[in-house]
Amino acid sequence: MASNYTENFTVEKCKTSKINDVDFDDLKFGSVFSDHMLVCDYKNGTWEAPKITPYQPITLEPSSKIFHYGQSIFEGMKAYKDDNGSVFLFRPTDNCKRLNISAKRLAMPELPEAYFIDGLKALLELEKDWIPTAEGSALYIRPFMFATGQGFHASPADSYKFIIACAPSGAYFSGQVKVLIEEQYSRSANGGVGFAKAGGNYAGQFYPTQLAKDKGYQQVIWTDDNTHDYIEEAGAMNIFVRINDTLLTVPTSDRILDGITRKSILSIAEAEGIKTEVRKIKVSELIEASENGSLKELFGAGTAAVVSPISGFGFKGQDYELPKLENTYGALLKKRITDIQTNKVDDPYGWRVKVC
Amino acid sequence: MASNYTENFTVEKCKTSKINDVDFDDLKFGSVFSDHMLVCDYKNGTWEAPKITPYQPITLEPSSKIFHYGQSIFEGMKAYKDDNGSVFLFRPTDNCKRLNISAKRLAMPELPEAYFIDGLKALLELEKDWIPTAEGSALYIRPFMFATGQGFHASPADSYKFIIACAPSGAYFSGQVKVLIEEQYSRSANGGVGFAKAGGNYAGQFYPTQLAKDKGYQQVIWTDDNTHDYIEEAGAMNIFVRINDTLLTVPTSDRILDGITRKSILSIAEAEGIKTEVRKIKVSELIEASENGSLKELFGAGTAAVVSPISGFGFKGQDYELPKLENTYGALLKKRITDIQTNKVDDPYGWRVKVC
Repeated sequence: MASNYTENFTVEKCKTSKINDVDFDDLKFGSVFSDHMLVCDYKNGTWEAPKITPYQPITLEPSSKIFHYGQSIFEGMKAYKDDNGSVFLFRPTDNCKRLNISAKRLAMPELPEAYFIDGLKALLELEKDWIPTAEGSALYIRPFMFATGQGFHASPADSYKFIIACAPSGAYFSGQVKVLIEEQYSRSANGGVGFAKAGGNYAGQFYPTQLAKDKGYQQVIWTDDNTHDYIEEAGAMNIFVRINDTLLTVPTSDRILDGITRKSILSIAEAEGIKTEVRKIKVSELIEASENGSLKELFGAGTAAVVSPISGFGFKGQDYELPKLENTYGALLKKRITDIQTNKVDDPYGWRVKVC
Repeated sequence: MASNYTENFTVEKCKTSKINDVDFDDLKFGSVFSDHMLVCDYKNGTWEAPKITPYQPITLEPSSKIFHYGQSIFEGMKAYKDDNGSVFLFRPTDNCKRLNISAKRLAMPELPEAYFIDGLKALLELEKDWIPTAEGSALYIRPFMFATGQGFHASPADSYKFIIACAPSGAYFSGQVKVLIEEQYSRSANGGVGFAKAGGNYAGQFYPTQLAKDKGYQQVIWTDDNTHDYIEEAGAMNIFVRINDTLLTVPTSDRILDGITRKSILSIAEAEGIKTEVRKIKVSELIEASENGSLKELFGAGTAAVVSPISGFGFKGQDYELPKLENTYGALLKKRITDIQTNKVDDPYGWRVKVC
């Protein structure tokens, strides 16, 4: 699929690369940014042609609706480089589809898939030297869209900006995390925007997460807002539970993100002969399984961390520890996914997309 | 309370006023902006001194968290001018308190009240010529705060910007509105951020509101996300229902905004001898009251519109009309509030604050 995609876009290259200022041996997650970004503006009812520009500040009117009414969505993706220097993406059209699902729910314009995919490829051709190759690292890619249109009237904006920026990144979490099962706060409503990657979904999680941190936990397991009896997500990730040899996760809904890592894990688990169940999971079932020893693993799944193992959880003032297993489903599934992502093994699913 | 508040702030005046370009006889809501704004930056764990600058664009890094994680809150206020040219605010400390309640829930820093109140007064002294005086018009004031701090890690930002901007405005709604009682979508979750004036709460309303518009309604009556049996808010306003001679509204909660107009209406209604009830209201009660003729009025209440009368509502494919009354509670309460706001009558409540 390699070709000179940049031919199709206006490209303004930066004068001097910042790449030599970056210590690739000490990358944090999403905190240094590459030389260029893709920018696409929506005005007068249509998307203008994308352009690649130097990564640079954005100038907005104070009355732009991004500052007032939360029309803000994003995606998270990664680019990987194999030993031959070839560059790969993982299920990129799924990210584009989900971006547009989010856009629709937030009354924002859907982006043409070609602008997303071709734009991404053009950008990556230019930024390929920014892709780190150390274990667990990748070029994190952040496509995002927000309202630029002006006015203090609470109504959808008439103009928007779509940007793809890149950040060479190390691993998202280090080590195992202890989580608190939430009994008071919640992240989404039935009929709300929980399934969308909308900015507001994240801001609402920060305060309860801070309260959990103050109690010695690193993340929150979200529960349903009505009864708090059912688990929903783990921090900003989907959640997986292993009870005996069965891997469980919660069905997607209008409250729960349709995670690309989540569905990849389900496919791979099936191929590995691991029994999976997609169904509602009660908090009481977790407690019971922990008490009778059948709860083997708990982990979050998402693009940033791939798999984030959970070492224990707190609920109603009591702490529950997960067993320390040698061969976990979490580690196996993470290896299988990252091996596909980084072109170390065949990809029977057609998920890996070669960029250049 | 008049004094030269501007002494306390850095003031950079604009070179040329735009005021002569504005047609004060044809003002829309919140779409032209005055010459100056107040800006206050939060950095390194502290709020820097506020400054007044020309109203001008804001420059932000693409990785600023406002674009990604929805840390965005605001307030809505109005300044009024009486026949003597004196300038007044309405319950401004309540807006500051609510801003800080929103800030806490969104893991944003609380703003010192003096910066808010004194900043507002200093700005209004400078912008007083921008306050329109025609019936129903006012200088709409938009205090807002958002995350400027950078990074793609889903965590609270480390820096923020607080701005107060002003827009001379005509009436928010014109005429009566027909509303749809929502049966599928919802605006807030138990344990969520519905009580906060968070940007994300508004973006989530736009799509369901558009669907309602497509069916011939102008706004949505939000219902609880679990059963859709109880009414919650009217568009971006609190809701009031008159059944026979009793005025009802819904209690505030973590799902419902503690509206300043809402609570002012409750106080004034009491003083006027109108019986009020603050309690949950079932959709079925509205339907029944409409069918037996006891449903007299329905209106939204908020800063922008003060009182926005509702002429009818739709539910489960059926339309219900409100009676056309001569002397409505809505009109009476709106007059009482705006008379206090515009210094036409005494203010026994101490709500009106003279600026200059």
